[in-house]
Amino acid sequence: MKIAVMGHGVVGSGVVEVFYQHYENLKRKSGREMDIKYILDLRDFPESPYREKFIKDFSLIENDPEVTIVAEVMGGLHPAYDYVRACLEKGKSVVTSNKELVAAKGAELLRIAREHNVNFFFEASVGGGIPIIRPLHLCLAANEINEIAGILNGTTNFILTKMIRESMSFEDALKMAQELGYAERDPSADVEGQDACRKICILASLAFGRHVYPQEVHTEGITKITLEDVAYAGNWGGVIKLIGRARRLEDGGVSAMVSPGFIHFGSQLASVDDVFNGILVRGDATGDVVFYGKGAGKLPTASAVVADIVDAAKATGSSRSLCWEEGDGHTVCDWKETSSAFYFRLRGGCSEEALRRLFGPVKMLHRDGQPQDETAFVTGMLKEKDAAAAAEQLRASGCAVLGSIRVLDY
Amino acid sequence: MKIAVMGHGVVGSGVVEVFYQHYENLKRKSGREMDIKYILDLRDFPESPYREKFIKDFSLIENDPEVTIVAEVMGGLHPAYDYVRACLEKGKSVVTSNKELVAAKGAELLRIAREHNVNFFFEASVGGGIPIIRPLHLCLAANEINEIAGILNGTTNFILTKMIRESMSFEDALKMAQELGYAERDPSADVEGQDACRKICILASLAFGRHVYPQEVHTEGITKITLEDVAYAGNWGGVIKLIGRARRLEDGGVSAMVSPGFIHFGSQLASVDDVFNGILVRGDATGDVVFYGKGAGKLPTASAVVADIVDAAKATGSSRSLCWEEGDGHTVCDWKETSSAFYFRLRGGCSEEALRRLFGPVKMLHRDGQPQDETAFVTGMLKEKDAAAAAEQLRASGCAVLGSIRVLDY
Repeated sequence: MKIAVMGHGVVGSGVVEVFYQHYENLKRKSGREMDIKYILDLRDFPESPYREKFIKDFSLIENDPEVTIVAEVMGGLHPAYDYVRACLEKGKSVVTSNKELVAAKGAELLRIAREHNVNFFFEASVGGGIPIIRPLHLCLAANEINEIAGILNGTTNFILTKMIRESMSFEDALKMAQELGYAERDPSADVEGQDACRKICILASLAFGRHVYPQEVHTEGITKITLEDVAYAGNWGGVIKLIGRARRLEDGGVSAMVSPGFIHFGSQLASVDDVFNGILVRGDATGDVVFYGKGAGKLPTASAVVADIVDAAKATGSSRSLCWEEGDGHTVCDWKETSSAFYFRLRGGCSEEALRRLFGPVKMLHRDGQPQDETAFVTGMLKEKDAAAAAEQLRASGCAVLGSIRVLDY
Repeated sequence: MKIAVMGHGVVGSGVVEVFYQHYENLKRKSGREMDIKYILDLRDFPESPYREKFIKDFSLIENDPEVTIVAEVMGGLHPAYDYVRACLEKGKSVVTSNKELVAAKGAELLRIAREHNVNFFFEASVGGGIPIIRPLHLCLAANEINEIAGILNGTTNFILTKMIRESMSFEDALKMAQELGYAERDPSADVEGQDACRKICILASLAFGRHVYPQEVHTEGITKITLEDVAYAGNWGGVIKLIGRARRLEDGGVSAMVSPGFIHFGSQLASVDDVFNGILVRGDATGDVVFYGKGAGKLPTASAVVADIVDAAKATGSSRSLCWEEGDGHTVCDWKETSSAFYFRLRGGCSEEALRRLFGPVKMLHRDGQPQDETAFVTGMLKEKDAAAAAEQLRASGCAVLGSIRVLDY
């Protein structure tokens, strides 16, 4: 069995490294003779021990019938999508770590794979080296998955951990994450929540059977979180985490959102710190199951890609459980109609009595060094639109709303 | 595809319930028409909606060529072993939740399954509804697993949680566990650690490729843990958990043990409370991955059995990665030669200076209400035999060793 690896960046070079490091074991586990025939990259790698495998022309892979498994680790939507599609249409199985690709085109690529009796695997696209895709559709097959919630982005979790543990400002923590290589020079995909959004889309699509597209999912990042918010979360009894979440509603609909949330200290998600990820899956039979580990990084991600290669090598046809239908772009219900408890932080005089009139029952929060004109509280469950309307009224009455974060229950 | 379910106790009745509750989904996921043809139990269930499926004679299952998948949920070694073996030899796939069976006979039954090109699956035997067996051999296939450590028994974890959180005595907590149905009337298999031992044997066998038998694994339960020990663990900075663990040694050997251990508050295992289980897997590429969820209970365990049924229905031959070799009974190295840090609690005069002479550097611990003649401390890393010898010298010098617990690093 001949394999092509498309892309030789961080993950791609890791795939080659892990593959040859575990070569004998992998052959034993797959029961197949396997080797990497091509590595596709536009750059030159004259020092690589595998330099004779490098090519720059995708059509060599596409048109080589010997190549039956292709690992796409280039990232980005184009040309990854075009290449993956072409490979599947030629009857080659494809494995990928590309969350952008799966979140945008998963249903279509799974359908094409099925039509050609091959596989499209993407264990590495969510949670890096954490097993999550396969457990969701295989091990939890006898469950109805009702809810998924996760810390899906290591960069933002690192930043929040620094803010919580060391009272570092968002800006300083981001700078440190960049220096350590955890954040890109342009960190917006991480700190604005898009990366977490893509991942919750993939998990929700698989769990609920219909494609949830990123543009359907209301997404808020962590750029507005302050150390004052962190302090009030502590007083409330928890921490602030960026949570991607999706839920099956009673009417058959789906709710999905990415936003920061207060998470109680007692939650398994509260102790997921630094660059680690944690994913909670709520099944009707099994209850809450949580998966924890490194959500990114060269070797963890590469090892998930290579495990997919092994599984593709063993497979005798398309997976029947790794699939979902195309969505119509309206799978997710209107987020403003969903409910949550809320934390608010205000500046300006506002009596507890006035707050109760606007928000219903509230619980006041306190922090060290709290200015006299600062008020913080959590509400009970409110519809998003009602909470927004009440906040608007506060503003109209002269209060400045300094912070607003959802209070979650996982 | 016709299925037989052997045993109609807690898990067995759950299997039938989960199977019919998710019937349509399961057929879709497996791509097969499936039904339960027989339920084997010596008791009568005249009220069951499935009463016409009940049989008392195993040979009906054994000799019915229509039955291709058998779920063994009777528990115990006999007649489960004999039945499972007979089914595999007749070319039927078997799925089981029976940890005693897998820990004692796993290698043999996997071999027989392979010889008949069928499968022997046992996802439910460890961690109840937590996906762990399949993630270990499929998702982490491109890793060398170097270490596994887990809270593998919910009953003892419930008892320890009550002792830690509510300062309940061991006896009272055990009584409560029995009243809540978490512990058997004879709780010895749980509180003496044998249940955890069977589970770490299964995980170690799969991870290291050679059968680790329960009798090879030094096993200590939690019956000697006192509230004083719990208090000192808190002062040290952690909690006491019953940990089953196994490690690949540099010389190719394996160490394995079940015992209580001090676990640092920062560990993912420290926050696994009540009847929940948590399993940490350390891979060379992926780093630490942790799986968390309900380790027992009717529906979680049943859902894992049913997921195995679905996977057996989809399979076109034996799994190549779910396998290990027979052991010679000496796979595990001599536990007295392994090393650990230790906590000791003593009564009787013993200066810090004298302790240092016996144990090397020690860190003294304290608790509220500590009697003047009570001393508690943790050591650095020591060989088990050296720690035991030093403790013996303490006793010879007139000290009473009231408690001794390993200090673990997960």
